[in-house]
Amino acid sequence: MKTRAAVAFEPKKPLEIVELDLEGPKAGEALVEIKATGVCHTDAYTLDGLDSEGIFPSVLGHEGAGIVREVGPGVTSVAPGDHVIPLYTPECRQCKTCLSRKSNLCTAIRATQGKGLMPDGTTRFSYKGKPIHHYMGCSTFSNYTVLPEIALAKIRKDAPFETTCYIGCGVTTGVGAVVNTAKVTPGANVVVFGLGGIGLNVVQGARLVGAGMIVGVDINDAKEEWGRRFGMTHFVNPKKIDGDIVQHIVALTDGGADYSFDCTGNVDVMRQALECCHRGWGESVIIGVAEAGKEISTRPFQLVTGRVWKGTAFGGARGRTDTPKFVDWYMSGKIEIDPMITHVLKLEEINTAFDLMHEGKSIRSVIVY
Amino acid sequence: MKTRAAVAFEPKKPLEIVELDLEGPKAGEALVEIKATGVCHTDAYTLDGLDSEGIFPSVLGHEGAGIVREVGPGVTSVAPGDHVIPLYTPECRQCKTCLSRKSNLCTAIRATQGKGLMPDGTTRFSYKGKPIHHYMGCSTFSNYTVLPEIALAKIRKDAPFETTCYIGCGVTTGVGAVVNTAKVTPGANVVVFGLGGIGLNVVQGARLVGAGMIVGVDINDAKEEWGRRFGMTHFVNPKKIDGDIVQHIVALTDGGADYSFDCTGNVDVMRQALECCHRGWGESVIIGVAEAGKEISTRPFQLVTGRVWKGTAFGGARGRTDTPKFVDWYMSGKIEIDPMITHVLKLEEINTAFDLMHEGKSIRSVIVY
Repeated sequence: MKTRAAVAFEPKKPLEIVELDLEGPKAGEALVEIKATGVCHTDAYTLDGLDSEGIFPSVLGHEGAGIVREVGPGVTSVAPGDHVIPLYTPECRQCKTCLSRKSNLCTAIRATQGKGLMPDGTTRFSYKGKPIHHYMGCSTFSNYTVLPEIALAKIRKDAPFETTCYIGCGVTTGVGAVVNTAKVTPGANVVVFGLGGIGLNVVQGARLVGAGMIVGVDINDAKEEWGRRFGMTHFVNPKKIDGDIVQHIVALTDGGADYSFDCTGNVDVMRQALECCHRGWGESVIIGVAEAGKEISTRPFQLVTGRVWKGTAFGGARGRTDTPKFVDWYMSGKIEIDPMITHVLKLEEINTAFDLMHEGKSIRSVIVY
Repeated sequence: MKTRAAVAFEPKKPLEIVELDLEGPKAGEALVEIKATGVCHTDAYTLDGLDSEGIFPSVLGHEGAGIVREVGPGVTSVAPGDHVIPLYTPECRQCKTCLSRKSNLCTAIRATQGKGLMPDGTTRFSYKGKPIHHYMGCSTFSNYTVLPEIALAKIRKDAPFETTCYIGCGVTTGVGAVVNTAKVTPGANVVVFGLGGIGLNVVQGARLVGAGMIVGVDINDAKEEWGRRFGMTHFVNPKKIDGDIVQHIVALTDGGADYSFDCTGNVDVMRQALECCHRGWGESVIIGVAEAGKEISTRPFQLVTGRVWKGTAFGGARGRTDTPKFVDWYMSGKIEIDPMITHVLKLEEINTAFDLMHEGKSIRSVIVY
């Protein structure tokens, strides 16, 4: 079949809207009609050539929602007509990691996914006879795409695609970091570095679990209003305080953060996020993706005196198990998404979405097919 | 009163055995007759002038056991005749940290203890009219010493002093890191870097909780026999393998350590200990004290993919609550101490104990009064 898609033919160039050839689903796979997809910083990171493992040509996009249209042999967990969210972190429920019950980082198809291929080692997309790679196992910048069934979370049918798609990455990453990874407790003081889309979702995750102080830190004053919109109680602009940001936060929180989150990807900020944690028990969670080659550092004394340094991917959410719960939480009003969707665009306007993101003018742009 | 003590008059000089003047206990304090004390690397670290916050002249020693001989006004938790272990990590049960139930790092007397003083800001020791400082709130290199009652763990009277004193630091630090900080689970694979006294106690802690593989890593082959003596199942000498120690351990443990422990104080080893942890859930615990100014580093990707970096002090043990339990475990044979006490010396021989430690010839030397 044919599908309309935005293709990244090479790094640092605009996406091109073309008609691709798409093979149907093989065993264990499903054809999904993508109805909406967010445009995320990670897509830009790859398109900008910053990811040394980025593969071109490829169909980017990993934050979608859609409808199953066809399934390959042996597929049992989804059927045509099911509404689904594609999962860049699948959940096979069979591998060592899935069975560990300690991590969401399923390894079933990791090797091929990292190479831009389906589990059988081939691509379903092609253009003029040449293969086009998949991206993060999702490739939601295509109206139709093929995924393994273990990479599809079946969700309720009354959830609107153009907001629910954000659960495919940003919402789950931020809220999940609070709920699954840090397991923030009621009354705990939370400090969030970086109030972009992920940071705002951390903020609303903290509100959801009844955190005490929810301190947002950003060098852009315009983010204060956004943070307060989702539950932030205190705002700090590091450029507008006297002295050190770590000492400032320790004083503000009467000893330090119970939980801190880095949503910036800046390794210097990651260190600040750790060191502003409370002696004895403060935990810092790295969410942001750092530039290739960058390292985090601290004195070991910071850890010996009780701080914990950890990280999270896809908010520690098990894709097929937890993602539908996040949709329920959205539909019941426990978490908000609508006000974060600042721009709704057509596929033809997708390069505008990247421009808006680079210029800091969007929280989340969504493409609707 | 008078007490015989080994005094560190200045850094990098041998201790001198002298008669000190000792004031009796003030309100909330107790006079303790020290019956035995271990000589620990931390004493050497301070004596060697490596601790930038080291204070001289002082009475070193922090790993003792003895008998309460007199109590000051208001003391209710100990009485003359009680057997006790002095605690460099006290437990007031009243401060924010004690009440948090998340950390053992009681802050009640931290400020004065760090200055080598009793909580009222003075010293009990003096020599020829000049004050001699306390050390880690304990000063067990004196036959008699004074401590706040919150820094005394009351223990059973049938426990022999010359072995039980080791619970005052090394045993609790190593076993406690496994039991309290990492909370190692039965069957889990454990990797221990450095098989000195702390490392061996980590090994026996792992055995105690039913760990699976217990891998010891040391550049000294002579440590293999010691490790196996306490439950180590595999030994790796990083100098005698082909290739990278991290990859070697990941292969040996079929994916990486569930829990790793640094007992070396070397920041490069601390990084190896983190990075040899299993993707998704491996936790690395820093026990060793690094040289002043040294920093740990890693790529944030190590944490984002599920590894956790933490540390421990006094094995996460709440001094008055947990230390008596460790004594029970020793007396009932759950943990061993006797074979680790390689040398028993008199106070007059204390500099020999430091020499043995520097030469790597002792696991633990104990001074018996």
